Amino acid sequence: MAKPLLNKLVIFGVGLIGGSFALALKRAWAVRHVVGFGRSEANLRLALKHGVIDEIGTSLSRALHDADVVLLAMPVGQMQPVMKRIAPHLSAHTIVTDAGSTKQDVVACARKNFSKHLKNFVPAHPIAGTEFSGVRAATADLFQSRNLVITPLKETDKKALKRVKDAWLVCGAKISEMTPRRHDEVFAAVSHLPHLLAYGLVYVIAGKPNAKELFKYAAGGFRDFTRIAGSSPEMWRDIVLANRIILLKELSGYQKQLKHLANLLRKNNGAGLEKIFARARNARQKSLLEK
Amino acid sequence: MAKPLLNKLVIFGVGLIGGSFALALKRAWAVRHVVGFGRSEANLRLALKHGVIDEIGTSLSRALHDADVVLLAMPVGQMQPVMKRIAPHLSAHTIVTDAGSTKQDVVACARKNFSKHLKNFVPAHPIAGTEFSGVRAATADLFQSRNLVITPLKETDKKALKRVKDAWLVCGAKISEMTPRRHDEVFAAVSHLPHLLAYGLVYVIAGKPNAKELFKYAAGGFRDFTRIAGSSPEMWRDIVLANRIILLKELSGYQKQLKHLANLLRKNNGAGLEKIFARARNARQKSLLEK
Repeated sequence: MAKPLLNKLVIFGVGLIGGSFALALKRAWAVRHVVGFGRSEANLRLALKHGVIDEIGTSLSRALHDADVVLLAMPVGQMQPVMKRIAPHLSAHTIVTDAGSTKQDVVACARKNFSKHLKNFVPAHPIAGTEFSGVRAATADLFQSRNLVITPLKETDKKALKRVKDAWLVCGAKISEMTPRRHDEVFAAVSHLPHLLAYGLVYVIAGKPNAKELFKYAAGGFRDFTRIAGSSPEMWRDIVLANRIILLKELSGYQKQLKHLANLLRKNNGAGLEKIFARARNARQKSLLEK
Repeated sequence: MAKPLLNKLVIFGVGLIGGSFALALKRAWAVRHVVGFGRSEANLRLALKHGVIDEIGTSLSRALHDADVVLLAMPVGQMQPVMKRIAPHLSAHTIVTDAGSTKQDVVACARKNFSKHLKNFVPAHPIAGTEFSGVRAATADLFQSRNLVITPLKETDKKALKRVKDAWLVCGAKISEMTPRRHDEVFAAVSHLPHLLAYGLVYVIAGKPNAKELFKYAAGGFRDFTRIAGSSPEMWRDIVLANRIILLKELSGYQKQLKHLANLLRKNNGAGLEKIFARARNARQKSLLEK
């Protein structure tokens, strides 16, 4: 049998993303042994039972000293404490990567905690979230044909970068690179802001005296519009805080647009409204056709 | 063979809704002859070719004098001119119903144009829109298990009401009743506002210099969130104008919520944000379970 890509993988946060990464690598015989760490003992036991991981981590030093790759797949608010705890146990050859939805803050954490190990840190973000979380939601197919953005640092070692890319290629991901700042700007616009807007809308409706009636008549359009409001509140709290400066800028631009729409409504300006609706529809359809 | 429910049905606007109504009734052998009127000759010819209608209407008086039911399924902005044109040709026994997404304005149009015929007017709204339009999108299944809201007037004749209900039951719809005002309030919240928000978001993104890059990285969450921004601009221009007073109130409440979210972000208030996200998620999941 050929030598697997990874001998030992250690995952922190064996949920939708971490669990799916393990399953995808295992299906391809690309990893020999997977150790999982996490806050929920029940979730880890489930992961072990279903063969997502081979071992529940107990000692950090024992789990990490011979690890090829460490994947940090917790909510981004956990990056600082976890990096601090693992840093003293990392061997020189161990590569650390992450799956955080924001990158500038994760990179800042890494700079603070990984000083001499920084060259072996490869920041990454698989664009594959769903509104489901926990290892129960993990599947070997999750990353198939999905985007994976890597935001290498000037210190990042070429071999470490290649190894992380190889692992994600095995998972079926389409890999691209950008700077951490660019990443955070792109995803503030197309992911973080829409989540905030959907949570906000459902919250407003849930607070109305006739909420039950409103949900009853909400059709498919509303269900799709608000699907992302079913996502993990903790994870999204961490994301919007981690990227709050850029997100606030995006939100402010959107608030201006809503003011403009309100003005058009107030003035009964049908032509102005139709122009905006038509441009939005055309842009959306064109972008979908190009995919 | 049993006598069909309707001998002759005349449809104005043979698109997604009008076409699906005809197909559903035909599949159940509930209508003998369907005449279609509309602005697009090409669309009507397509409807005729595919058996959605049996005849393209040419003379209003000939088409209407022996019609059992007339369905008005154009964008709501067309209600006033079409009602005005058909009113002189309506026989005493002909029932008129509509499929407009707003009800107060349609009822106002009916009061203006149908004076003595008002008792035979049954305002209705099938909650079955999709982002597709035109007769090509029509299917006999569209209304299966979907809500159909009827907003009867104090003048509405009981027999006319029953006949319209019977036709929608044949289509598989779940029928409920409310006042026109209540209808417009409910759908301002769960349909009209979300459409406005989705159009606004896609418009903002489409206007950015890196729009192409942004759409490239937009994942499933964004696609679902903005699906309704693929809807007909004309139809939605008419809807938001027709319901603009109530919609502006809803929009204003939402804008307040966004201001609150921006404040929480500015103050780095994770607990406050998580509370809103969690309440939204729970409300959404609870409402879906109840469906």
